[in-house]
Amino acid sequence: MGYTLEQLANKVQGVVKGDANLVIDKLGTLENATHKELSFLANPKYQSQLALTSAGAVLVKNEELAQLVENAIVVPNPYLAFAQLSHLFTPIPQGWSGVHNSAVVSVNAKIGENVVIGPNVSIDDDVVIADDCIIGAGCVVSRGTQVGKGTRLYPNVTFYHDVVIGESCIFHSGSIIGADGFGFAPTQTGWEKIDQLGSVNIGNNVEVGASTTIDRGAIENTQIGHGVKIDNQVQIAHNVVIGDNTAIAASTAIAGSTKIGSSCTISGGVCIAGHLTIVDRVHITGMSMISNSIEDEGSYSSGMGMEPTAKWRRTVARVRRIDEMAKQFLQLKQQVNKFLEKVDK
Amino acid sequence: MGYTLEQLANKVQGVVKGDANLVIDKLGTLENATHKELSFLANPKYQSQLALTSAGAVLVKNEELAQLVENAIVVPNPYLAFAQLSHLFTPIPQGWSGVHNSAVVSVNAKIGENVVIGPNVSIDDDVVIADDCIIGAGCVVSRGTQVGKGTRLYPNVTFYHDVVIGESCIFHSGSIIGADGFGFAPTQTGWEKIDQLGSVNIGNNVEVGASTTIDRGAIENTQIGHGVKIDNQVQIAHNVVIGDNTAIAASTAIAGSTKIGSSCTISGGVCIAGHLTIVDRVHITGMSMISNSIEDEGSYSSGMGMEPTAKWRRTVARVRRIDEMAKQFLQLKQQVNKFLEKVDK
Amino acid sequence: MGYTLEQLANKVQGVVKGDANLVIDKLGTLENATHKELSFLANPKYQSQLALTSAGAVLVKNEELAQLVENAIVVPNPYLAFAQLSHLFTPIPQGWSGVHNSAVVSVNAKIGENVVIGPNVSIDDDVVIADDCIIGAGCVVSRGTQVGKGTRLYPNVTFYHDVVIGESCIFHSGSIIGADGFGFAPTQTGWEKIDQLGSVNIGNNVEVGASTTIDRGAIENTQIGHGVKIDNQVQIAHNVVIGDNTAIAASTAIAGSTKIGSSCTISGGVCIAGHLTIVDRVHITGMSMISNSIEDEGSYSSGMGMEPTAKWRRTVARVRRIDEMAKQFLQLKQQVNKFLEKVDK
Repeated sequence: MGYTLEQLANKVQGVVKGDANLVIDKLGTLENATHKELSFLANPKYQSQLALTSAGAVLVKNEELAQLVENAIVVPNPYLAFAQLSHLFTPIPQGWSGVHNSAVVSVNAKIGENVVIGPNVSIDDDVVIADDCIIGAGCVVSRGTQVGKGTRLYPNVTFYHDVVIGESCIFHSGSIIGADGFGFAPTQTGWEKIDQLGSVNIGNNVEVGASTTIDRGAIENTQIGHGVKIDNQVQIAHNVVIGDNTAIAASTAIAGSTKIGSSCTISGGVCIAGHLTIVDRVHITGMSMISNSIEDEGSYSSGMGMEPTAKWRRTVARVRRIDEMAKQFLQLKQQVNKFLEKVDK
Repeated sequence: MGYTLEQLANKVQGVVKGDANLVIDKLGTLENATHKELSFLANPKYQSQLALTSAGAVLVKNEELAQLVENAIVVPNPYLAFAQLSHLFTPIPQGWSGVHNSAVVSVNAKIGENVVIGPNVSIDDDVVIADDCIIGAGCVVSRGTQVGKGTRLYPNVTFYHDVVIGESCIFHSGSIIGADGFGFAPTQTGWEKIDQLGSVNIGNNVEVGASTTIDRGAIENTQIGHGVKIDNQVQIAHNVVIGDNTAIAASTAIAGSTKIGSSCTISGGVCIAGHLTIVDRVHITGMSMISNSIEDEGSYSSGMGMEPTAKWRRTVARVRRIDEMAKQFLQLKQQVNKFLEKVDK
Repeated sequence: MGYTLEQLANKVQGVVKGDANLVIDKLGTLENATHKELSFLANPKYQSQLALTSAGAVLVKNEELAQLVENAIVVPNPYLAFAQLSHLFTPIPQGWSGVHNSAVVSVNAKIGENVVIGPNVSIDDDVVIADDCIIGAGCVVSRGTQVGKGTRLYPNVTFYHDVVIGESCIFHSGSIIGADGFGFAPTQTGWEKIDQLGSVNIGNNVEVGASTTIDRGAIENTQIGHGVKIDNQVQIAHNVVIGDNTAIAASTAIAGSTKIGSSCTISGGVCIAGHLTIVDRVHITGMSMISNSIEDEGSYSSGMGMEPTAKWRRTVARVRRIDEMAKQFLQLKQQVNKFLEKVDK
């Protein structure tokens, strides 16, 4: 699994400075890479590491930087080039190929060419698995669900019935697509379930993290656009709509019927209330609570960072009495102003 | 799967206004329903949509509203009626019936009548599965666990050993019932595990969302009452007790030994500390932190909604110095009052 | 499964007070234990329960306390002794032994002595499972992963490829080790995936809770030290490093490349940003947001507890205007001081 520096440079339309025949076995960090490894400098903050690195070669963005190391590939965007080259060095995660004989595949399912179905998989009636898909061990694809070409499910993924998944998607283990949205009508004695009759539509090039859940719609469908990237342990409720290329970090929860624009970036631990609209290109910082719609692009926040517990407790005690303090402040201001007016006369 | 308006009206003790023989194929929203679909108006806010809808018929709460559409079913609670009718239109999520030949069922397990056990299921010794249960593909029911009549497990659910589950429950994929509570005694060199010897008891008509975890008790049992509805990605720790008909939204976490009353509604992203008691009919708003017991019914909150990041940062900087500001304010107030007293004399 | 009080005392180097031949069947709480059960008093707060308990015997820390009950075992640390004795009373969670015939085990995998592999398990090529491991039903262990001696996987655990797991660990159901870290390079049209080429190394005596996810590293490895205890629904991102014996409660999320020291205790619902360093022996209280490194041991907080919603709303409204209030306050203070100076002259 080695490539010459020249081969790698060609893959990313880069220019080799130094030994074009150097063989690279692996990618590495500037700090720990060996002479058979290729590293990258994306953030100018780490430029001083160039002098110290033992990397065989480094992806850099100009010739000036290239001169600081023995071998380099010069490309306009070293981070992107590194991402592109990473695909060359990734191992194959499973040993089996074809349809494993322990997999249960309905005779009414339609399985494309060149599909890998791992051990103990269950594929139900009327499922369509397009060409080049890889379905990991223990996955369950329920009745009528369609999976687009080249999509990969890591082990133990669950797709409910009638879900529609695009092409070239990646679903990590434990992700669950199409479970019932949380819908109940209150009755005099408790709750009446509202059967969730919609489904989930997922676009192309979507990645869904481990243990992430995307619920089916109540009546219409939950919709995830093309190129959306979702991290682990994210909860997406029924009838949420997410625009193309939006990225959502881990442990974020989005309540029902909220519409999120395209090219948004939502950090981890965020909670977004239901029935909101968030426009394109919004950034939300970590652990924010979003309880109103967002009409303008830009960055939004609400989390407060930690302090030593003793100091924080004093702060909280004061915050709890801020309403009283504000009233007393207003009173004092009026008192002072009244007095000063009198004195001025 | 079509029903006449008259058939549907009879199911919900409603009265047809318009064409009782109209055949309804599906449920739909006011906005997008077609002439073969039945919709509903629950929230008066959306009344103006009645004039615009293409729905074949609409569930409404009085005759006045019925006159705004061509066909209607008049019922006192259209939302509840809609929930009840939703059961007629829900598809069957799996194609297989009976016990699939790939399922592993212990000879010491007791399986009731009319039970569906999907592919690659594991049912351990001494398990009892009552009549009419549906166990989805890939589920694991561990030694000695009992599942009540008519309960459904979607695929890839895990029940640990000796758990007791009521009747007519629904468990979504990835839910895990009876894992060890988080209990360790500190030692001089680390932590000594406290084996979790209790179990989990779950009542009837409970719904548990995808990827939700309910831990077994340390000594006694974790208890979930009848009619409790739990959304996705909820964490319920050991020895928690939850009263009947309480509903808990997604991504909420409840720490050990906390007792929550009946008919509570807990929004998403809430964290509830351990060893607390919360009375009946408490509502907790999204992303609140509950670190004290709640003795009176009513609504409780602690989350702060987002602002543009730049403004929020100024707010946070001021909040961090609120203790100092409060002290200076007190000082100024005393100074002013002292002066004014002097002047008054 | 009964033991005499003497046998139990010997296990924990304790001294029996009362009937050494009393047979104990079970462990119980002071409140509900019967005469065949052993309980414990760890917290002096509950001392009054000693007079009321029906427990057959109680673990207590001195003879004075022992005199308050009929039978006792005196040990310096009753809570730790209780933890140690809990191992005697824990049931075996699964009925099967050996390698179940429905399990799929690659011929290229190496399985140790005395290993239990449950039904519908998948073990891929080049996996190494050391002696005395128990692999629950439905687990998937991917290509090249190594599992140390005596480690237990509850059902439906997923290990990705090339992960290295220590000895005597416990993995609860739904835990997922080695899924891809969340790494993408922005492009002009969306995101380019950075293949995650690192792995996960987990030490000995680690416990990982249900539905917890630990991602593989981008280039180097995510590392979990020895004796680390992780609760349910925790998210640990790529390249996180966690020191020995740190404990992390449920629903906490740790972003990429953050380094956490040893012997830390992190409560539930905490979010920790990426690229931080937290020293040893730090305690973080529930629902805190950690967005800076922590350089000194001690306790840190940022959550605010709930209040009745109406009061809380007034508080939040004031907090949102705190910047304005602080400015007005400063102005008033200057005005007053200027006036007082003038008067003094």
